[in-house]
Parts: sequence; C-alpha cells; structure tokens
Amino acid sequence: MPVPIRTSRKRGRPARGSGGVTPTREALLRAGVVALTERGFSASGIDEILRTVGVPKGSFYHYFASKEAFGAELIQRYAEFFAAKLDRHFGNDMLSPLNRLRSFIADAESSMKRYDFRRGCMIGNLGQEMGSLPESYRAQLCEVFLDWQARTACCLEAARQAGEIPATADPERLAAFFWLGWEGAVLRAKLERQTAPLRLFAQGFLDTLSR
Amino acid sequence: MPVPIRTSRKRGRPARGSGGVTPTREALLRAGVVALTERGFSASGIDEILRTVGVPKGSFYHYFASKEAFGAELIQRYAEFFAAKLDRHFGNDMLSPLNRLRSFIADAESSMKRYDFRRGCMIGNLGQEMGSLPESYRAQLCEVFLDWQARTACCLEAARQAGEIPATADPERLAAFFWLGWEGAVLRAKLERQTAPLRLFAQGFLDTLSR
Repeated sequence: MPVPIRTSRKRGRPARGSGGVTPTREALLRAGVVALTERGFSASGIDEILRTVGVPKGSFYHYFASKEAFGAELIQRYAEFFAAKLDRHFGNDMLSPLNRLRSFIADAESSMKRYDFRRGCMIGNLGQEMGSLPESYRAQLCEVFLDWQARTACCLEAARQAGEIPATADPERLAAFFWLGWEGAVLRAKLERQTAPLRLFAQGFLDTLSR
Repeated sequence: MPVPIRTSRKRGRPARGSGGVTPTREALLRAGVVALTERGFSASGIDEILRTVGVPKGSFYHYFASKEAFGAELIQRYAEFFAAKLDRHFGNDMLSPLNRLRSFIADAESSMKRYDFRRGCMIGNLGQEMGSLPESYRAQLCEVFLDWQARTACCLEAARQAGEIPATADPERLAAFFWLGWEGAVLRAKLERQTAPLRLFAQGFLDTLSR
C-alpha cells in the first residue's frame, strides 16, 4: 500500500476552494479521521478512503488541494471533536471538578471498548509517526496537545479551588503530566485490547493528586 | 512506498535456516531496527533497508523466511538490546536503587538527543501501529513491555528495601505505571524534539515515589 498523505504536489483537477462544504467532502473527512485513528497515516491509503466513501479515484483533488492539506484538515477536525468532548466533561457543573476528570476517563474507556480497541488517539498515532510525515504537521500536533493540556489544567485548577486537591498543587504541571502518560496508556490499551492500562494510569494519576 | 513487513508469503529463493548468522544478515537486522525505531513499520520499506545495506533486491528471502519473520526477529533483537540496557543501569551497585532508575532516565534523554530525536522506542512505535501489523506481533510486543516492567519492579523493590521509597509502595504497580507513561513521554519528546517531556514525566513519577 502506498504512503498516502505525503506529497503536496497537485495532480488532476484543480481543488475547489478549501472552504467548500459538500456531503462528499464531509464523508471523506469522516473516513479519513477513522482511518488515521485506527491505523495512522503511513498505513492508510487515500485510495482506500476514497473507496470507503464511494468516490472515484480521480476526484480527490476536486475536494482537497493536496494530500498534505487533507491531512492537516483531518488533524484540525479531530482536535475540534476532541476539544468538544473535553468541554462536555470539564464543563459539567453537575459533577465536582475531579469527578469531571473521572467522567472523561470513563468516556475514553467506553469509547475504546465500543470500537473493540481498534481506535486509539489520532494525535498520538501521528505524533508517533512524525518521522515520516510532512514537517508542517509537527507544530500543529504539538499545539493540539497543548490545547488539551490547557483545558485539563482549568479543570484541575477548579479542583484545587474546591479543595479536592492540595492548595499547593500545580494544575498546569499536573495536566502536562497527565497528557504525557495518558497517551502512553491509550497506546497500551490498543495494543493489549483491554481497558486495564487506562485504569491503571488514571488510578495512579488520581492517587498522585490526593497527596 | 509499499508496506513492507506484512505478508508472510514466501517468494524468491528459499530462506536459509533462521539460525544462520552472516555479516549481511546482521547488517539487515541492524538496519531494520534503525528504520523501525525512526519511522515504524508501515513507513519503512524493505527495499530501502536492503539498499542501505547494499543487498540486491532479490536476496531478502535468502536471509529471512518471510517479512513477518524478519519483523518478529527485529522485535526480539530490540527487546534484547533494551533489556541489556536496563540491566546495565539497574544492576549498577555503585548507585542507590532510585539513582539507578535516574541513570536509566538520563541515558534515555541523551540517546534521544544523540539521534536528534529521530529515534523513539521501537516497541512503542509498533504498539501504536498494531492496527496494521501481523496479529502475531501483538503478544510479542505485550511480553516485551511486561519484561521491562518486571526489571523495573525489581529495581523499585530494591529501593523499597533500601528505604528510598515508602515500605507500603507497590513496586509492580509503580513499574507498570512508569512504563505506561514513559512510552507516552518518549512519543512526545520525539514529536517536540526536546527532552522536556521525558524530564517532566520522570520528575512527576519520582515525586510520586517519595510520597
């Protein structure tokens, strides 16, 4: 299978304006996110994504300026989807701040189970593959992690203010620590096909918080 | 670039006995470990590995029974290399047990720096890619992590006995937690091209230990 999203050379028909929204373009983005979340970039073929959606091979450049641009849009798309998920949990006033974090963790567990542990974290997948991806993705991927960390730090700051974690705790540092380790735990959960790694990491992290 | 190590179908000349050790076979294994540590499976081509070593395209099956078998041997090779590295640090009687762990962490930092953050952890790379790898690798990769965890647990048990960590600490659990998070930190260090993620995770982990 060819490496798909690597060259930025245009071929075929010129791309429609990147702001264009059509059901087909949407379907390609959705199929791309699934492919990259399950198998990463290098193992995902554009041809396969086109086939999934039922789009003829020659039509790709009708929807996207380049493969690199398609990939960048997939990262953006996944980042937004995931930020909304975090906001849903961290903004839930019915729960205490620490229970909001627990609710995100439980959601991640059930999401991974629902897809039989085939789907991991798209940003983690691409981070791992960065050695063979367009260099422009590096800053984009780093920013996504920083965004998730910042949202998590806000939740931990609320926990600090609510007295759920010690007043001396450093929410930013803890959030950074959480995301470093959580990505490793997601990788292992996918590899082992079980939630145990997620639980073990989350429990260890929560134990840290209470001390 | 074609996905290299995927099919187990034999082609070309029959494989020499898998126990055969020749300089060329050795060189192919070494080049394979580098490719997989830098770029993972899907983005590494057998052709490229052969070219690096200066072996004609048709000769691969002279040295290995199949691409799948080649990959399995690379995992084995890397696991042994890494276990020896852990033993070197964890068996260093000149240091206290916790300082042995610190010395491993410092070694990992300088190794990543030495290769300009191009090389991560081969087992982490392949774990992330498992969705597109031969299913037989899954158990092999899980075992490698369990082996590293066990070696680390022994070091932490020595730290417990030496009074460097609380008597109530659970070395097995802590070692499992360490490896979950450490792989995530290696991924981020490679992505960000800096040691900060390794340091932040290691410091957070060591802080946990002292409480």
